[in-house]
Amino acid sequence: MRIIVDAMGTDERPGPDVAGAVLAANQFDDTILLVGKKNLIERELSQHRFDHARIEIVDADEEILMTDKPSVVTKSKSGSSIHIGMRLVGEHQADAFVTAGNTGAVHAISMLLTPKRIPGVKRPALSSIFPINGLPVIFLDIGANTDSKAEWLAQFAVMGDTYAKRALGLEAPRVGLLSNGQEEGKGNQLILGASEIIHQLPLRHIGNVEPSDILNGHVDVVVCDGFIGNILLKTFEASTRYLTNVIRDELKADVFSTIGAMFAQAAFRRTRKRLDTFEIGGAPLLGVNGIVIVAHGSSNAHAIKNAIQQARKAVQGQVIEAIEANLVKMATL
Amino acid sequence: MRIIVDAMGTDERPGPDVAGAVLAANQFDDTILLVGKKNLIERELSQHRFDHARIEIVDADEEILMTDKPSVVTKSKSGSSIHIGMRLVGEHQADAFVTAGNTGAVHAISMLLTPKRIPGVKRPALSSIFPINGLPVIFLDIGANTDSKAEWLAQFAVMGDTYAKRALGLEAPRVGLLSNGQEEGKGNQLILGASEIIHQLPLRHIGNVEPSDILNGHVDVVVCDGFIGNILLKTFEASTRYLTNVIRDELKADVFSTIGAMFAQAAFRRTRKRLDTFEIGGAPLLGVNGIVIVAHGSSNAHAIKNAIQQARKAVQGQVIEAIEANLVKMATL
Repeated sequence: MRIIVDAMGTDERPGPDVAGAVLAANQFDDTILLVGKKNLIERELSQHRFDHARIEIVDADEEILMTDKPSVVTKSKSGSSIHIGMRLVGEHQADAFVTAGNTGAVHAISMLLTPKRIPGVKRPALSSIFPINGLPVIFLDIGANTDSKAEWLAQFAVMGDTYAKRALGLEAPRVGLLSNGQEEGKGNQLILGASEIIHQLPLRHIGNVEPSDILNGHVDVVVCDGFIGNILLKTFEASTRYLTNVIRDELKADVFSTIGAMFAQAAFRRTRKRLDTFEIGGAPLLGVNGIVIVAHGSSNAHAIKNAIQQARKAVQGQVIEAIEANLVKMATL
Repeated sequence: MRIIVDAMGTDERPGPDVAGAVLAANQFDDTILLVGKKNLIERELSQHRFDHARIEIVDADEEILMTDKPSVVTKSKSGSSIHIGMRLVGEHQADAFVTAGNTGAVHAISMLLTPKRIPGVKRPALSSIFPINGLPVIFLDIGANTDSKAEWLAQFAVMGDTYAKRALGLEAPRVGLLSNGQEEGKGNQLILGASEIIHQLPLRHIGNVEPSDILNGHVDVVVCDGFIGNILLKTFEASTRYLTNVIRDELKADVFSTIGAMFAQAAFRRTRKRLDTFEIGGAPLLGVNGIVIVAHGSSNAHAIKNAIQQARKAVQGQVIEAIEANLVKMATL
């Protein structure tokens, strides 16, 4: 397998990106192509031990920043690591592309330039995978599309279901539509419309789900419009950060609590680990005609290695071919 | 002032409802009308000390349950405490109605029967008020409307702004539209449309806000469609519950952490208090032609007392008259 890794993706690039690629090269039986500024990658690689046959460098002299506007960089920075990585996947010179870079740019380049959509896909969807009690939940769309149509959501359900089966190892994933109540009939027009279509599909549709269902592990594939998915994800992140900060403040506010916090360090460390999405590393941009795994900008080497592992599983599970086939099936229902 | 309190609202009714009314009667200079099953209220009242001139009982022989469908109970249970409380407010026999009962039923009865809408209001909105660093943030709509129109959201902004000024004591509340990014131009069609209208209104429009802005105290009035508001609120609740449970688990998982947790009890107690929406007690159903404060079903006596205090402030601030006047102004812009 040949996996391209964006060396210029993380906030601390190219350190974690290169270190993650080395971890993957040492652990898996693949070739890693590091794409980015060649001299920076070489300098970083010189600090690691690895089988030199396993890592190749692809030079990319331009760099897309987190602050760059997706609509602008598609045209202006065609020599960037994201452009080149995507092109290699689009031309089948590699099996997958892993990046912790500007998500909007990744999405825009995939759509406007290459690898474009899988035939039949109305809209690609950004996903997020997070661990609930040790099991992965895939959640889409988290921001590629606003003002979705019911049919797009139905396709998200098919793509999420396919990914969960092929790459996350779930046999019969429970697919739910995010809504403002579990009862049938609850929801806005979009949810009601999507529900009707999804109900007819050959997948395990469990109906509407609420945020607590996600966090209680009652659903494996959560489908929603990108506007609301983005807000839900940010609310989850903001809420846990808020509560963490309140607890930290209060633990410092009296001496007994501060002593208690020192005793309880192991518990807080385990808590952080259980909330840690780095264990999954990244999540796919589903619907584009190639395996593209997007990792968080704050990823460390471990997270990048795990994102590469996500990519491997997606390639092994032949996710692209399966999505195309399942969408053809869906269209003929 | 005469405030009607639903004695049959909370999950543990009529205990917390009656006890909260007694607390309010003893603290404030008002008459409380307890509406509900007379014999149950009398039995409950017999356990309290209070000025008997301050509390009246209004009998209501029917009871709306949390599981009752709003569309059904508007017609079928016309002798319920919610029906009677609403009627008394609609007929100006009382200044406000406070209830911890079935929110959907409260909303449906207010719209279909009485007190109906304030002239000019397109759609009433359910709000939630929560304390961020000790200051109230009002958030609407949290579930009365799905598939909102831009103009409804603009009215929510006016109503929320008015309430924040008149009842929450904020001089120049910062009004933000919940969106998937702060930048202008971010959002779905609804947000873009609402933004254009709100921008022209005589209020302090700070543009788009994200979930972290709410929790960091960067906004006082958060405006959104009820579908997404409902999901945001439930995500916040589910996330903090999830994190709390993970921490509790992990504190029990090794003996040092368990000892630490005992030392840190005060910190955890203060954390709970800081997250406690009971300190605010309830939030208004805005846009109906009378002060209606909705409290959480799990409210204790303290929360009910605080909800009654919310009602007092709304009456004193002449919120209804101010909303009507501000909507007239908005229509002539």
